[in-house]
Amino acid sequence: MKELQTVTALIDSFSKLPGIGVKSAERMAYAVLAMRQEDTLEFSKAIEAAASKVHKCPVCGLYTEDEKCEICLDETRDHHTLCVVSDVKDALAIEKMGKYQGVYHVLGGVISVTKGIGAESLSIDKLIARVKNEGVKEVILATNPTLDGETTALFVAKLLEGQNVSVTRLGYGLPMGASLDYADSLTLTKAFEGRKKI
Amino acid sequence: MKELQTVTALIDSFSKLPGIGVKSAERMAYAVLAMRQEDTLEFSKAIEAAASKVHKCPVCGLYTEDEKCEICLDETRDHHTLCVVSDVKDALAIEKMGKYQGVYHVLGGVISVTKGIGAESLSIDKLIARVKNEGVKEVILATNPTLDGETTALFVAKLLEGQNVSVTRLGYGLPMGASLDYADSLTLTKAFEGRKKI
Repeated sequence: MKELQTVTALIDSFSKLPGIGVKSAERMAYAVLAMRQEDTLEFSKAIEAAASKVHKCPVCGLYTEDEKCEICLDETRDHHTLCVVSDVKDALAIEKMGKYQGVYHVLGGVISVTKGIGAESLSIDKLIARVKNEGVKEVILATNPTLDGETTALFVAKLLEGQNVSVTRLGYGLPMGASLDYADSLTLTKAFEGRKKI
Repeated sequence: MKELQTVTALIDSFSKLPGIGVKSAERMAYAVLAMRQEDTLEFSKAIEAAASKVHKCPVCGLYTEDEKCEICLDETRDHHTLCVVSDVKDALAIEKMGKYQGVYHVLGGVISVTKGIGAESLSIDKLIARVKNEGVKEVILATNPTLDGETTALFVAKLLEGQNVSVTRLGYGLPMGASLDYADSLTLTKAFEGRKKI
């Protein structure tokens, strides 16, 4: 007996998710078979809705079901401050913090020499156009503090030189609650460089 | 900004899968949003098909899209030998070995005192009826070599006492505490060869 074609198709689909190998995909497919029918149909509809309803905001790149995203439409937010993130999930993390009042710009990735991702495949031209046309006063470069994230931040900062805009980068240092003897040297170096009077 | 309702529904569905926490479910939901539309629709259809097309074989409990499963319909297999497994995935692992020629009986779980799963919620009555009515000569108890699997095997063996049937247990080629569907074919072969009367 071979696996049913329906089940194979399901395993294939699960395998396309990040970090999911064949064995995990198999386990998930059989879990779906064992689900109550209403849960399965709900699951199927949720995925279908993700494809048909949700799209990227044409201004900032966050996900939305409307013409523009909630944040771009929000008049109470500061539209002169742009927070540049590589991914939608990063913007959500910042929103969870609940203290940022500006708007966002999602690059859709980072420049990566090893992965062959160049600046042209990211939403950088659109960012520059926004800065020029929307009277932006501050651009906060909130890409990850990794090699690729840094490269991307420096690249964008360079392009924004000469524009009348303040370009900042998120602060570096020890994460709150961290243990000093577990911190890596680079983080410690950054923490020392960024020390402040108390 | 809160997460879109469509996205929340998707995260909820992924969270229902075994071993998937909220963070992994979030990661998967965003991966679905980033998929090509055709992949997403295929995914949605695969799940829908799992709910609408696939059901359990009324004889043995394996999954099928037809009236009975492929194995129960196969005249070339030995219908006098029943291999009793707790789960469909276990039968698939045995099929992958390619050496077993009998048919199956899926219990749909194991007796578990800690989880409060009693014999009445498993397909044990049906198994006894099959043994009585179908001229079964051997019942191979292939539940996992775990505490609950052993308990279930002994319970079934006890019920089959007095029936004119040879009841065997897979050989201890399987390491105790292992999960049957992760076993390699060689270990499974040894286990089949070393099966003993109980």
